[in-house]
Amino acid sequence: MPEIHAHRRGALRSLLTESGVDALLVTDLLNIRYLTGFTGSNAALLVHASGDGRTVFCTDGRYTTQSAAEVPDLERVIERASARALASHAAHDRAHHRRTGFESQYVSVEEHEVLKVRFESVDLIRTPGLVEQLRVVKDEVEVEALRAACAAADRALADLVAAGGLRPGRTEREVARDLENRMLEHGSSGPSFDSIVAAGPNSAIPHHQPTGTELRTGDFVKLDFGATVDGYHSDMTRTFVLGEPADWQRELYDLVHRAQAAGTEAVRPGAVVSEVDAAARSVIVAAGRGEEFSHGLGHGVGLEVHEAPSFATTGVGTLTAGMAVTVEPGVYLAGRGGVRIEDTLVVRDTGPELLTLSTKDLVAVR
Amino acid sequence: MPEIHAHRRGALRSLLTESGVDALLVTDLLNIRYLTGFTGSNAALLVHASGDGRTVFCTDGRYTTQSAAEVPDLERVIERASARALASHAAHDRAHHRRTGFESQYVSVEEHEVLKVRFESVDLIRTPGLVEQLRVVKDEVEVEALRAACAAADRALADLVAAGGLRPGRTEREVARDLENRMLEHGSSGPSFDSIVAAGPNSAIPHHQPTGTELRTGDFVKLDFGATVDGYHSDMTRTFVLGEPADWQRELYDLVHRAQAAGTEAVRPGAVVSEVDAAARSVIVAAGRGEEFSHGLGHGVGLEVHEAPSFATTGVGTLTAGMAVTVEPGVYLAGRGGVRIEDTLVVRDTGPELLTLSTKDLVAVR
Repeated sequence: MPEIHAHRRGALRSLLTESGVDALLVTDLLNIRYLTGFTGSNAALLVHASGDGRTVFCTDGRYTTQSAAEVPDLERVIERASARALASHAAHDRAHHRRTGFESQYVSVEEHEVLKVRFESVDLIRTPGLVEQLRVVKDEVEVEALRAACAAADRALADLVAAGGLRPGRTEREVARDLENRMLEHGSSGPSFDSIVAAGPNSAIPHHQPTGTELRTGDFVKLDFGATVDGYHSDMTRTFVLGEPADWQRELYDLVHRAQAAGTEAVRPGAVVSEVDAAARSVIVAAGRGEEFSHGLGHGVGLEVHEAPSFATTGVGTLTAGMAVTVEPGVYLAGRGGVRIEDTLVVRDTGPELLTLSTKDLVAVR
Repeated sequence: MPEIHAHRRGALRSLLTESGVDALLVTDLLNIRYLTGFTGSNAALLVHASGDGRTVFCTDGRYTTQSAAEVPDLERVIERASARALASHAAHDRAHHRRTGFESQYVSVEEHEVLKVRFESVDLIRTPGLVEQLRVVKDEVEVEALRAACAAADRALADLVAAGGLRPGRTEREVARDLENRMLEHGSSGPSFDSIVAAGPNSAIPHHQPTGTELRTGDFVKLDFGATVDGYHSDMTRTFVLGEPADWQRELYDLVHRAQAAGTEAVRPGAVVSEVDAAARSVIVAAGRGEEFSHGLGHGVGLEVHEAPSFATTGVGTLTAGMAVTVEPGVYLAGRGGVRIEDTLVVRDTGPELLTLSTKDLVAVR
């Protein structure tokens, strides 16, 4: 798909012009993947504001063949110290690189010292976050990858439940491994992040790591997990009850379910992110449980499992069509149990498009 | 084990004094784990040259309980922007923090700008790599973790072979997943890195990623994989033949086996790292295969799967007792197949201590 990468570089060029730089040295591997399709572990990219004719990609000898296949449409340089090689390239063509931006949010102070020497008389300009500005709104190629990742997670969960994978006596760790293996069977290249499987009182710990704790009848079982497809991450949480739910469990589940619906409904282009958070949070606060919802409502998701925007009480900015985000309220009763329900969805003019499709009704596993 | 962490901080204090700084702001999470035992995902540590009485640890509210258990022996501050909080702490006690070092190899140019403001009139000094200087030599607590990680990998491989896991018709991906699951059963918290399973001609690709390629009789099958225990990584490669080895396979295997033995024999305190590489490489060069050994001989291993020292033709420095390293020569015949044999071992005065114990004799799987 060289076209989509050329298109993304075109969008970046407008930002370079706005920022008053002739070129941008891209060193973050996810940003390079976004702009070129390259998936190796060492690369740098010098994007020129004038177009692809002056744009140069660099990787090392391990990736000569792979980069020719993945990045057929750009000049390629093969050298191990990739960023430094492109700095020298710019220095040798100073006429076209008088002001060159760099990703100052990633480049270390030490590396910056080395690059300054390599760039010679080129003015190195701090330009943090330019590619991230583009990445926050997903194009349809990206949404397709997110959709596939979410589908792998949905299918794995359905298989797990159908196979009796959530049963008393199994450990949290066994369930996590089972779920991750099932995602692989459905096309995931690996978990999006360390899966959370939390049973009984552990479900009240928001980011509990799976242990040898066994699932027991009457437990809440909270599963927070995701698949990765083409580098894109899904993120979903579902909470089950083993056996017949107690009244307090039904009430707690219903509260979180309503908050999640309210948050989802608030997701639309132009919505202020703190207000999306507030839409869900107010439901929980009204029930007197505000203190027990101890984290933000959600976050952007894409090449990183946590990226912009961040929904929180202090979140700033507004939503735009094409953003991919999670909505994940939770209420945690220490020592008893907790419920979190989370979807990944895309902001659309016509209302949010759900990518995670597993039921959000309370499922009692028998 | 607070004692071991206090001991490591003591060793670091000598380096601070040598570097002429009053304190060091540690922001790398692995370095923080090494110095405190903290395993969470957000922290900073201000180590004072005068002792633990002025040393401060910071993490956020998610880790209040965990940090109290893991870091019981240091003053703890709970704040989300952990490095910035400790910068303010130093600024408010400038009398004891006139010159403060920071990990300039990790801190980004943007974060440095923010920290400079927070540190006010404190002199921020670039002091890259101080904790890494200590980490390169492992203490016995670390060696014990490495030993456990290597044992998990050894046992998983033995189980895999005994269960007929290496058989014609299985895909590289299936074998990789099987091996990783077996490591989990033996106490690994996850693979050290993406496992390499390479069958037939794929075995000639040094860092091949597992595909749907099926194993066939007559293939070399190269497995490069590792387990993680307490944050420490093992790294081992073994190459098998499915069925009766052909003469060229026996010859190639024998060559790499001899090179690996020669490299291992050269591993001793005081050895120059380029000479350890040369000890193995000369065996392969003498056989006319120098061009087909296209990578360095090995690398240090610990909290990172690749860390100092690096064995390569251009490697500098000498080995010290207590370093943990890999020795992994390989010869790769493009289009036919390749062999790599790799151990993880500890440099000892009495000769290298092998941590990976799986046989290095040629195993023909039938």
